[in-house]
Amino acid sequence: MHDADGGCCGHTHAQGPRHIYIYSPSSAVRDKPAFKRGIARLKAQGHEVEVDADALAVHTRFAGDDATRLAAIHRAAASGADVALISRGGYGLGRLLPQIDYAAVAKAVERGTEFVGFSDFTAFQCALLARTGARSWAGPVLTADFGAADGPDDIMLDCFEDLLSGHGEGSGWRMNKEAPGADGAPAVPEIYVQDATLWGGNLAMLASLVGTPYLPDVDGGILFLEDVGEHPFRVERMLTQLLYAGVLAKQKAVVLGQFTEYKLATHDKGFKLQSVVNWLRTQIQAPVLTNLPFGHVDTKVLLPMGAKVSLSVEGRDALIYWGHTH
Amino acid sequence: MHDADGGCCGHTHAQGPRHIYIYSPSSAVRDKPAFKRGIARLKAQGHEVEVDADALAVHTRFAGDDATRLAAIHRAAASGADVALISRGGYGLGRLLPQIDYAAVAKAVERGTEFVGFSDFTAFQCALLARTGARSWAGPVLTADFGAADGPDDIMLDCFEDLLSGHGEGSGWRMNKEAPGADGAPAVPEIYVQDATLWGGNLAMLASLVGTPYLPDVDGGILFLEDVGEHPFRVERMLTQLLYAGVLAKQKAVVLGQFTEYKLATHDKGFKLQSVVNWLRTQIQAPVLTNLPFGHVDTKVLLPMGAKVSLSVEGRDALIYWGHTH
Repeated sequence: MHDADGGCCGHTHAQGPRHIYIYSPSSAVRDKPAFKRGIARLKAQGHEVEVDADALAVHTRFAGDDATRLAAIHRAAASGADVALISRGGYGLGRLLPQIDYAAVAKAVERGTEFVGFSDFTAFQCALLARTGARSWAGPVLTADFGAADGPDDIMLDCFEDLLSGHGEGSGWRMNKEAPGADGAPAVPEIYVQDATLWGGNLAMLASLVGTPYLPDVDGGILFLEDVGEHPFRVERMLTQLLYAGVLAKQKAVVLGQFTEYKLATHDKGFKLQSVVNWLRTQIQAPVLTNLPFGHVDTKVLLPMGAKVSLSVEGRDALIYWGHTH
Repeated sequence: MHDADGGCCGHTHAQGPRHIYIYSPSSAVRDKPAFKRGIARLKAQGHEVEVDADALAVHTRFAGDDATRLAAIHRAAASGADVALISRGGYGLGRLLPQIDYAAVAKAVERGTEFVGFSDFTAFQCALLARTGARSWAGPVLTADFGAADGPDDIMLDCFEDLLSGHGEGSGWRMNKEAPGADGAPAVPEIYVQDATLWGGNLAMLASLVGTPYLPDVDGGILFLEDVGEHPFRVERMLTQLLYAGVLAKQKAVVLGQFTEYKLATHDKGFKLQSVVNWLRTQIQAPVLTNLPFGHVDTKVLLPMGAKVSLSVEGRDALIYWGHTH
């Protein structure tokens, strides 16, 4: 672990250069300087960076029309790269779900290509897991993370290099300080869960898949969630959908990441994100963890979506551990 | 019909005063002057207005805590009123869905109480229809509609009085002017549908019920949708959920109401609500109608949620007709 607030656990190790394929399945890349900085940064790390022919395509708000973005996904799957990294999220993957060749993607994963991204990418990751059981990684994108103007976040970089070397073993973090419950019990009890499927991502994308063939049916899983620009009442509404659909009752733990860039209103009169967390704890048996370093923030760990992991909580310290994945 | 842009069809008629019960199942009433104006207006129409004891309750952003709002719903059902009218929408009904005594509400409907509202109320209406088949009305609320500062909208008032007298028979309106398709065919073909279940309401609420026990399983229905403050890409994402869940394929028509108060961004580069309408038409066989006078706008017709209706389209003129409902 790199610091008290969160980080990756892994062995130190040497590694050779890796082949990274950059493609754009969602919104059009608008910040070209960030795109270039991201590529330069990956190259400076010693990696071979291959950029998809349509990575900078534009069709209204999308990175090319549906056929273009679909073909880009399939080229990423055929690339033989070590990592297929999206340029950015935004919106657009949801439109493509019925047309994606999931078997081809799963085969690429089997051959060693790790698909990495988050936000809108959650739709792809969920559908891939639902359709094939193949693993992907919730993690950074090219522009906002590697291309950040003030340089990529150190913890994110370490986690990414751990992934590339196959030596990542887990992520630990410190949860929010919360008042104990009415019975004096801690907000999050000490727990130890083994062999649970880790899954999740962006809450809005995940909720938008409920009732469709693209939501994985994960039993006894550990569900992690994050979102951006969603008022707590909307977060609650989305959690309510997962609750009423029976998704939450099947999980061994719900792990809340970062919920950012929303604005409370004066008429909220005390209703806030913590209200939603407190409410959620009255609705499900499973513990609800907080403050996972993942979401629309710089410091994000990488998480193996669809992998078996163990989870432990001791006081405010939480650890998701998957051992070697290679 | 009252004018070229939309209105109710009904017989002229005399009617006695009606008993209207006002209650607050969702957000707290903030605009008290509008609340008072609305009540005064209904009384001026000759109606007896009964105000629930907790209609002005406040608990953070809600009109009282969950138990308070739940009790208010059940008091409305026990009131014996002709109409149970919500003070306003907002947010809060979704939290209550598992605890509502739907049989009691359905019994009230059978005894002649019409439940009226929209927006957040869609959750209640969907759940009631799913659980009991009981009808309710998509229509106005007290504060924003009857309590509007410049007076209630005439068409809304007429439709409401038609409901009270039991003489409403349908609603007609003029659809948007749209370019014909590539084959020269009109955007909305001439159609005539009979004996179809009318249902729908607020798209965000409806989409949030997909995969839960509270979404009615309507086959061969006519689905009407409206929303406020949702960017077209979010509207598309919600429609995508209904599409992938198989809801849209089961409808004989999708009727789009008013989608208002969203902001396009420069990076949308031509992606707009019409793009979503065009896309939707490539995804389903059923016709997609536009411009139903219903939504977060002053001029709204009343629509019998869960009733059998007929629908006709001729050129830009559309008509939903249910004949007498009493």
